[in-house]
Amino acid sequence: MTVVLKLGGSVITEKSEPETVAEDVIDRAAAAIAETDDELVVVHGGGSFGHHHADRHGVSTTDGTRDAGAVTDVHDAMKRLNAAVVDRFQDHGVAAVPVHPLSVASRDEEGTLTLPSGGIATMLDEGFVPVLHGDVVVHASTGATILSGDELVADLAESLDADRVGLCSAVPGVLDESDEVIARIDRFDDVAAVLGGSDATDVTGGMAGKVRTLLALSAPAVIFGVDDLPSFLAGSSPGTVVAGESTDDH
Amino acid sequence: MTVVLKLGGSVITEKSEPETVAEDVIDRAAAAIAETDDELVVVHGGGSFGHHHADRHGVSTTDGTRDAGAVTDVHDAMKRLNAAVVDRFQDHGVAAVPVHPLSVASRDEEGTLTLPSGGIATMLDEGFVPVLHGDVVVHASTGATILSGDELVADLAESLDADRVGLCSAVPGVLDESDEVIARIDRFDDVAAVLGGSDATDVTGGMAGKVRTLLALSAPAVIFGVDDLPSFLAGSSPGTVVAGESTDDH
Repeated sequence: MTVVLKLGGSVITEKSEPETVAEDVIDRAAAAIAETDDELVVVHGGGSFGHHHADRHGVSTTDGTRDAGAVTDVHDAMKRLNAAVVDRFQDHGVAAVPVHPLSVASRDEEGTLTLPSGGIATMLDEGFVPVLHGDVVVHASTGATILSGDELVADLAESLDADRVGLCSAVPGVLDESDEVIARIDRFDDVAAVLGGSDATDVTGGMAGKVRTLLALSAPAVIFGVDDLPSFLAGSSPGTVVAGESTDDH
Repeated sequence: MTVVLKLGGSVITEKSEPETVAEDVIDRAAAAIAETDDELVVVHGGGSFGHHHADRHGVSTTDGTRDAGAVTDVHDAMKRLNAAVVDRFQDHGVAAVPVHPLSVASRDEEGTLTLPSGGIATMLDEGFVPVLHGDVVVHASTGATILSGDELVADLAESLDADRVGLCSAVPGVLDESDEVIARIDRFDDVAAVLGGSDATDVTGGMAGKVRTLLALSAPAVIFGVDDLPSFLAGSSPGTVVAGESTDDH
């Protein structure tokens, strides 16, 4: 069983303080991950580490930079967060190793991502837990742009032929008008009203963008809060299951 | 013109002190690199950063580890050296960006390296100077093994179809019995005696291994000392030219 798990940036960092790790949350995640026998790829977001550097330099998923100092400002901040995650995972006995997307991924002129995953697949075969992160990525004709954790999750789920995808977020699932968790989403139109989701520009972390992306995957995905991470890793589907027409279990 | 340049670990670090950067040498290299208009990929070795961690954990190019802590000990030390190189290059106006081989490369069971270079090629197209380093690499059935800077240089020279390869080393070239620089090497047999070079186990940095590897490349290679780096980057071939039967200019 291959599982791709996203840890939201707002889950693992303190939003109110720049570059502050939510140590207790990472420790709880590490303890849960240490219990699983699945082949697990972890992707984490940027939270209070990556975003302000990206904003400061005017870099987004579409607006690029050719300033190498701007590239390393964002990248180094994300590597600091990644090192904190990997260290704490290792402290809990998880064989975590870092994978930095800037080193391996690229976009063509249209922005389409290429992420060769042979090294990650070999890491899984060898018992390691690769830990990736939102990052900058080189982008043809544009310099370098932002690569979100959500985009990494979608790409890896397909290229590794993942069996399950989990998004551990700051909320317990996709919420309806009454702030109740929606148990299952099969079609975007069913939730468009509540997600305010015809906004096609929402690509870097909003819930509408997440749901759209997850609906297109072959693997069923689950969106849940950090309290439900042990349950997800044990095989349950807490929170909201997102499974579109192209999903294998549909 | 695409150029792959290796900066030897013993050139850019102080061998006598653990994890000490040879700042003056890196600054001189950066100043020379800032002058070139070629598309340049830089690879550096480990020197006093990587080797002692690898030795301590018993990891070599063939002896692997599945201890994630051992992997990150070696990898993190190399990333510290890489960050120092990238920072100083940027200070001299070089658009240096880091590329960490653990994130992108892998070996199969026979130890054959796969290093997808599409991202690096896009970096070159966009005007960046990717800076790679000797590292650990995931290795099928073996865990993780060492990937030397020399092996990276050879792989990148082929995959990027480089026009020239330069090895900036602690010596001014390949030396003969009288410690004179040999101007050109076309066949290994011609220098086997002086290199003591029938030792097939010499794969991580010895001159015999370097020469064997370089003779197999399509691009002509030059081995030179740090004083000759500006000359090499200006298009000259100081030191020893290594060009085997498969080299394009042969």
